[in-house]
Amino acid sequence: MRIALAQLNQTVGDIGGNEQRILARLQEAREAGAQLVLFPELAISGYPPEDLLLKEHFLADVGASLERIAAHTSGIVAIVGYPERSVDVYNSAAVCADGVVQAVYRKVNLPNYGVFDEVRYFQIGPGGASIEVDDVPVGLTICEDIWQPGPPLTDEALAGARVIVNISASPYEARKGRQREQMIVQRARDNLAAIAFCALVGGQDELVFDGHSLVVDHRGEVIARSAQFAEELLICDVDVASAGATRLRDTRQRAPARLAQLDVAALGSFVTDGTSDEGRPGGPVAELLDDEAEVYAALVLGTRDYVRKNGFEHVVLGLSGGIDSALVALIAVDALGPECVTCVTMPSQYSSSGTRNDAIVLARNLGVELIELPIGGPVIAFEQILRDVFADRPPDITEENLQARIRGNLLMALSNKFGWLVLTTGNKSEMSVGYSTLYGDSAGGFAVIKDVPKTMVYRLVAERSRRDPKSPVPESIVTRAPSAELRPDQRDDQSLPPYEVLDAILEGYVEEDLGREQLIARGLPAPDVERVIRLVDLAEYKRRQQPPGIKVTSKAFGRGRRLPITNRYRG
Amino acid sequence: MRIALAQLNQTVGDIGGNEQRILARLQEAREAGAQLVLFPELAISGYPPEDLLLKEHFLADVGASLERIAAHTSGIVAIVGYPERSVDVYNSAAVCADGVVQAVYRKVNLPNYGVFDEVRYFQIGPGGASIEVDDVPVGLTICEDIWQPGPPLTDEALAGARVIVNISASPYEARKGRQREQMIVQRARDNLAAIAFCALVGGQDELVFDGHSLVVDHRGEVIARSAQFAEELLICDVDVASAGATRLRDTRQRAPARLAQLDVAALGSFVTDGTSDEGRPGGPVAELLDDEAEVYAALVLGTRDYVRKNGFEHVVLGLSGGIDSALVALIAVDALGPECVTCVTMPSQYSSSGTRNDAIVLARNLGVELIELPIGGPVIAFEQILRDVFADRPPDITEENLQARIRGNLLMALSNKFGWLVLTTGNKSEMSVGYSTLYGDSAGGFAVIKDVPKTMVYRLVAERSRRDPKSPVPESIVTRAPSAELRPDQRDDQSLPPYEVLDAILEGYVEEDLGREQLIARGLPAPDVERVIRLVDLAEYKRRQQPPGIKVTSKAFGRGRRLPITNRYRG
Repeated sequence: MRIALAQLNQTVGDIGGNEQRILARLQEAREAGAQLVLFPELAISGYPPEDLLLKEHFLADVGASLERIAAHTSGIVAIVGYPERSVDVYNSAAVCADGVVQAVYRKVNLPNYGVFDEVRYFQIGPGGASIEVDDVPVGLTICEDIWQPGPPLTDEALAGARVIVNISASPYEARKGRQREQMIVQRARDNLAAIAFCALVGGQDELVFDGHSLVVDHRGEVIARSAQFAEELLICDVDVASAGATRLRDTRQRAPARLAQLDVAALGSFVTDGTSDEGRPGGPVAELLDDEAEVYAALVLGTRDYVRKNGFEHVVLGLSGGIDSALVALIAVDALGPECVTCVTMPSQYSSSGTRNDAIVLARNLGVELIELPIGGPVIAFEQILRDVFADRPPDITEENLQARIRGNLLMALSNKFGWLVLTTGNKSEMSVGYSTLYGDSAGGFAVIKDVPKTMVYRLVAERSRRDPKSPVPESIVTRAPSAELRPDQRDDQSLPPYEVLDAILEGYVEEDLGREQLIARGLPAPDVERVIRLVDLAEYKRRQQPPGIKVTSKAFGRGRRLPITNRYRG
Repeated sequence: MRIALAQLNQTVGDIGGNEQRILARLQEAREAGAQLVLFPELAISGYPPEDLLLKEHFLADVGASLERIAAHTSGIVAIVGYPERSVDVYNSAAVCADGVVQAVYRKVNLPNYGVFDEVRYFQIGPGGASIEVDDVPVGLTICEDIWQPGPPLTDEALAGARVIVNISASPYEARKGRQREQMIVQRARDNLAAIAFCALVGGQDELVFDGHSLVVDHRGEVIARSAQFAEELLICDVDVASAGATRLRDTRQRAPARLAQLDVAALGSFVTDGTSDEGRPGGPVAELLDDEAEVYAALVLGTRDYVRKNGFEHVVLGLSGGIDSALVALIAVDALGPECVTCVTMPSQYSSSGTRNDAIVLARNLGVELIELPIGGPVIAFEQILRDVFADRPPDITEENLQARIRGNLLMALSNKFGWLVLTTGNKSEMSVGYSTLYGDSAGGFAVIKDVPKTMVYRLVAERSRRDPKSPVPESIVTRAPSAELRPDQRDDQSLPPYEVLDAILEGYVEEDLGREQLIARGLPAPDVERVIRLVDLAEYKRRQQPPGIKVTSKAFGRGRRLPITNRYRG
């Protein structure tokens, strides 16, 4: 059986554009002789459409688009994800064949944890469903359905499905792709069925979908795999006869089948024009990226899609001569090209010639425009206004924040005047403990590395340098002690534990929801644990006003971590 | 039967403080002879605790607190709301009597719409439950349980409950209190049972809980009612004998009782030291506020609680001489007292003497400090820096935003130096269409009137003036055409439809999720509808970086309205 998996980069709300991409891939799949073509979860609306799903007219527009898509299915069966307005609303997969929507499967397992809010929008589907495509029984599932080891997947397999289809929109986090693949391999082995997993790809606000579609045969062998982080139409032949033969020999399913009360709807039998050739089953198998390259690719794609899908062509960022802004500049150039990136250096009296020179060298190596805007004038002007009201109070954090906000104001002025999107450069470690200035260095439209811990910042820059023989990053940027240069001889890590310790505490506290005692039991120093927890808790109000950025860890600040600002609990 | 309803102002995460408030009211209730005392939903943790519920140690601390509270229950039965860690996590009501936790009821209906995310945190409870208090059968429910006309409420009544208890944390919106009361009245009549509704009160980030606890007898008469927006221990005697007698006469329940498969757990019988006196049933019945007074009171309480619960003593705001900042100043003074409010006027070359004088008069009338910080110096300094890079481009929105951000920077400098919280002054109409400057007028910790439409701003100022014989607001503030005074002769409403039309469009589009066609069918002008929808959609990125503010409408920007930034759907 020949299956086509259309790994698409859809845009939320762009019903017309999404439809065009679906139709183009449908045509390609037909020309490739596919019998069955799969499109990702909610492919027509994009994922996640959030409260667009509360608009009747949006759902009606999606429904009309589905009808148009179905009209193009002749000689092929297409499974298309969309939000379905029926008596209630469902996260559904339409079975399109012979020019019409023949039936729908409705997602059973609705995730409502982490970044997911599907119970907010959808009614739960009634159970499993299967179709026959050229006499091959095919079970249908949507995303979370396959993350559960039980029904509807098991029901469909016990009812005879030789191929299980899963259409998905599974947000990226580091190493999740490999775990997802392992899980699917195990499901195939457990259910003695081939699994075709068709994934969404692309950036959507804080989420990146990593693609990584694949086909696993009933033995658990990965026989086809799409590239990560790119659109692709993956064509794969599946040996369904062999899967059937295996079930005669391997009778593990007999006991559960005897006991089961199967809940599987038969949604019809369809005949196609496609044919599997008689060669070896399988398709192209893309190599997987290693850990750092994967995160870097996610950041590049997430940045490119946020910029482009929001209608921007050009970005601007402050280049301090430090490693964080260097990484953001690298990502921006890789995402958009150097001609679409402007860097700005905004020296003050505390800026060193070293950082300033490094910024110049980096910008030159990257081939990006560099603007220099010294901030001394406004600093003096503000100090004059505030002199009386501040009276004889000594300088403190106020004067540091003032400088950072003058820089934010300058970047925003460039943004307003030239229509550029401001990229901010703060990392997750800083964001966690509140080491940033609201409306200052955090002012901007997209926070590229807000979910990248500082230790990973170093690893990503090293990774990028390894891949590029003429590395654009001056070594002094990597080796210099970090400083915001907002007062004489400032060093960021003097008031914090070393980044290795800081990031270990943050991983436990933020990503794993562990408490003080549990972190100390891990061997982390008690005073550091106390201090960092307190800083993280008190910075919640700052994080609430940050721009969105790309989730790459298991828990990013934003939709995946929802803590009150007003909160007296410490730890 | 004598019931005490403890309408408490709890703080999220403040387990120790919440426990102390519960114990104090428990003692008062006992001294008042109550047999049963009720505390609100999640009274120990505060509501909503959000992702604190993902911390094992937090749930353990709550459990320990519950044990300590239960130890104080002798001679009285206490129903205490708390998050329960069992095999899974439940939103539970503990039945505390004779010094221990005797049993728990687990909430059945978990809201996961609007501002609610309860399915993210809680497992669904198995069904209804009842206890006997001095031989009176009492059914237990939690918040959303009573908003459903069916089980568990109906099951408990059919199983014999004469009194239904509901412990609640129901967020305020305009006119919701009256609707809630009507609903409870109807439930009492439908179920031939008295209902004791014990509500949370107080501000928590974007939510205000309005209190308004009440007791309704089995005929649907409101026999006791707490004040709105204030803590109170409401004591009420319920005539349970009469409710029982009614069921002999009124046999509507026989038919459903015969058919029902009741799902009600019997959680025990308890004997107390309390006694209802032999006088008339009932308790104090507070008057309800009218519509404008209610919204104003919500804003005052929400502001006071956000400021105080977050550890601030003093607030600062920019006073422009316009009506929005005048309203925020009034609310701040009513919430905190004039000695805790500083106003700042920051004139530019475009400021009129009229607005400046009005700001001075208003500040004097309110008795608050007024600081004047003219922004001309920084404006010139910024223009000098940017002259070369802006070259010969004409002035545009950039220069306007620059001024607004200089003002934001000044307010934040005062905040940093003196530890004051910055209140922002933008209203919902502006927030909707994006008429504000990110990091400028929107810079601050709390956006008091972000959910108040402009037409309501005028009504609230009028309402406040009616109540105060020597109204502090100069008439010219009310009558002057609105302007941000960021360029010569600017008027806010020149580029927008009149506020009556604007707010009608926004109510339909934002609160009711209607589309273009539906709004035009309501008689709203098509060009205005098109324009406003477009502006609302494009301002999503700005709203994402706003400070929190108080929800007073049916749908506020923030947790109740979740739209993607990256979104190509228009309308």
